[in-house]
Amino acid sequence: MKKILLASTILVGTAGFAAADNANFTFSGAAYAGVAYSNLGAGTFAPEVSAEFTAGMMTTTDTGLEAGASVTVSARGLSFDDDYTTTTFGLLSEDGSSISNASVYLSGDWGKVTVTYDDDGSGAGATTTDWDVVFAYSNTWGDFSVNAYYTVAIDGATGTNGDLGVTGTYSFGDYSVYAEYDFDAWDATAAGAEHLVGVGIDATFGAFSAGVDLDYSITNSDLDWQADVAYSSGAYTIGAFVDEDDAGVNWGFDAGLTASYDLGGGVSIDGAAIHDDATDSELFKLGVSMAF
Amino acid sequence: MKKILLASTILVGTAGFAAADNANFTFSGAAYAGVAYSNLGAGTFAPEVSAEFTAGMMTTTDTGLEAGASVTVSARGLSFDDDYTTTTFGLLSEDGSSISNASVYLSGDWGKVTVTYDDDGSGAGATTTDWDVVFAYSNTWGDFSVNAYYTVAIDGATGTNGDLGVTGTYSFGDYSVYAEYDFDAWDATAAGAEHLVGVGIDATFGAFSAGVDLDYSITNSDLDWQADVAYSSGAYTIGAFVDEDDAGVNWGFDAGLTASYDLGGGVSIDGAAIHDDATDSELFKLGVSMAF
Amino acid sequence: MKKILLASTILVGTAGFAAADNANFTFSGAAYAGVAYSNLGAGTFAPEVSAEFTAGMMTTTDTGLEAGASVTVSARGLSFDDDYTTTTFGLLSEDGSSISNASVYLSGDWGKVTVTYDDDGSGAGATTTDWDVVFAYSNTWGDFSVNAYYTVAIDGATGTNGDLGVTGTYSFGDYSVYAEYDFDAWDATAAGAEHLVGVGIDATFGAFSAGVDLDYSITNSDLDWQADVAYSSGAYTIGAFVDEDDAGVNWGFDAGLTASYDLGGGVSIDGAAIHDDATDSELFKLGVSMAF
Repeated sequence: MKKILLASTILVGTAGFAAADNANFTFSGAAYAGVAYSNLGAGTFAPEVSAEFTAGMMTTTDTGLEAGASVTVSARGLSFDDDYTTTTFGLLSEDGSSISNASVYLSGDWGKVTVTYDDDGSGAGATTTDWDVVFAYSNTWGDFSVNAYYTVAIDGATGTNGDLGVTGTYSFGDYSVYAEYDFDAWDATAAGAEHLVGVGIDATFGAFSAGVDLDYSITNSDLDWQADVAYSSGAYTIGAFVDEDDAGVNWGFDAGLTASYDLGGGVSIDGAAIHDDATDSELFKLGVSMAF
Repeated sequence: MKKILLASTILVGTAGFAAADNANFTFSGAAYAGVAYSNLGAGTFAPEVSAEFTAGMMTTTDTGLEAGASVTVSARGLSFDDDYTTTTFGLLSEDGSSISNASVYLSGDWGKVTVTYDDDGSGAGATTTDWDVVFAYSNTWGDFSVNAYYTVAIDGATGTNGDLGVTGTYSFGDYSVYAEYDFDAWDATAAGAEHLVGVGIDATFGAFSAGVDLDYSITNSDLDWQADVAYSSGAYTIGAFVDEDDAGVNWGFDAGLTASYDLGGGVSIDGAAIHDDATDSELFKLGVSMAF
Repeated sequence: MKKILLASTILVGTAGFAAADNANFTFSGAAYAGVAYSNLGAGTFAPEVSAEFTAGMMTTTDTGLEAGASVTVSARGLSFDDDYTTTTFGLLSEDGSSISNASVYLSGDWGKVTVTYDDDGSGAGATTTDWDVVFAYSNTWGDFSVNAYYTVAIDGATGTNGDLGVTGTYSFGDYSVYAEYDFDAWDATAAGAEHLVGVGIDATFGAFSAGVDLDYSITNSDLDWQADVAYSSGAYTIGAFVDEDDAGVNWGFDAGLTASYDLGGGVSIDGAAIHDDATDSELFKLGVSMAF
């Protein structure tokens, strides 16, 4: 039997159906087309192309709270993995279409709370318990801002349930410094809880900008760090970075050079050369980025 | 060979391509974040989060007909099944992203015809014939309105092909009564056609509202019924319902309590406690609903 | 460990994040509802329904270049294959929801370059190398326009890597003529490169319009051709076509009749009767097309 006439309305809240209002929607988008070469294995030269848009939704309650959510729709495309912190760096992949994970927020004078679903949070494989939900809080008092999160999941020993962290940032003039603490409830190396601390600084000197991040695992005595510099002149920006993110203290660096020419209107020509220490390979990219 | 330059235009109708007109689009959206507890099995406490938006499209013909369609895009999320009429009540599930079934309508002085595709209509399993298309008609004459539907499918004995129904509703002052007839062409219990009739009433008395629905299967001599009441005061609404929807006449009820606080702007705080008779379990929910 | 607070920003170009601007978005949509009958096999009569919308994104650089991309979101629906050039003509299929392939363009006084990803370009099966990217160029000088393309893929002998072509079109008054050359780098019949040439003409004589296309494979000595005529009077348009697209020169034609009534506002009633020679079957369609 096909029941279609009398949908149950019992569980619908009093918020009911606000009149659909396009003014509640802010659309944004991004696209990229270019070419890249990875010398991983026998070497691969291939194009890269992507396009996506985001429907941002926002409304305001009678007492002035801001409530919102967003959904991102991504077209099918093609790209190299340019994340030098993963083991898949330099691999070409067909990117299937996708719709983002749900993210919902509520904000007011007391700060902003965001609830974000992650369909693949624990990394323990594509099981039905392979998800987590992150409750994040952020707020700003003058030059000082804080970000904190707590992670809820139903998963096993390599999961994320109970992971939490807090970051405090202080900005003054052209400088910004931060300190952070993270608690990893299920660390693989330590086979138990891991405690991590981090500090960092970002600074601007005229046309130059630079940043340094340090992360230290108290539990595993592992120091990771990253530094980057950039120089801007007119529409040009060039930059460089080094990154030591392997387990244990060593001297194998990821490193890269970036260059960008801003065409205005959200469009730029971007190039990058990236070396990954773990795979001992390089990726070279050149393309046009668009932000709508 | 890659043929891309000369796309065939032979089958394109004269409607051709209307100039894209954002005025034809009305966007709406919904989001939810909360927590819930089900005591099914060993009990599960987990967050719930969802977000979606709908692109509503409408145009008007030269003679004043209204033609429209809508597409809903849902982000990945997490939720408990709170539908006490299903066997999956109380189960937590990861909700993959989705795009809705197509629904197209045409309306005029003569009423409104809606054609809706359902990709999983027959319930006979995920086969290539597991779909149906529902042709629905609705119209209103003063205080009287009618809804009717006819279902087309290519499926077997447990399917929906030929299912049809009609509902007449009469509204007067604070009361609304309806009577309905449904024909289930492929009833599992009767192993043949099933005839069903139903009546209902909804009424409002100041801050109180109440409704009663009765559904009777003439073929299977099975009476199902449901009743609900609600009380509103300012931003608060509280409600309760009972529902007897099992096969055969019995005294095992589903039942629930709901409470809601309207924050304005389409945002409300909603809570519910629901008991399901078939699984002998309860689900408790509390969260923030947003309508954009 | 769940790292969420410090996303790497090293690889983001200087284009950064343009302020989201709804003025950069142009939405368009299409919907269809109707019925169709195919006499293939035992014959199938079924409804057809579809709905989709496209988010078109466009921005302008400081020097006046236009940069854009689009993403189309299609709802689940049901349709017969009405493409008489494929082997699946006349088959009913459930259309799952989909998001389009990425397409990105940049245009200026020098013409327009479009980069389009195709997730299933080579036809060699659903393998990880079963894609191609098409770089297309188009420009117009007065009455003369040119379209050219080059295809990049990583695939085997039946693929599309290296396919290219160019078409020149000259329009004068009510006439338009074109000539084209295509290079198929991996032709199945010739087991090598195939060279193809084509010419065509479209003309309008008052209420009548007509077109003829000729395509000739120099390598395989195969002539394919197509002709169509149409007559319009007020809101009505009727048309007919014949098409000979089989391998080798023969006299087995696909053919069809079309009729359309324009309701205005992007809505039309469309009918078609199509004969496919290869399957020796007919498809009859009648429905309402909507363009938003």
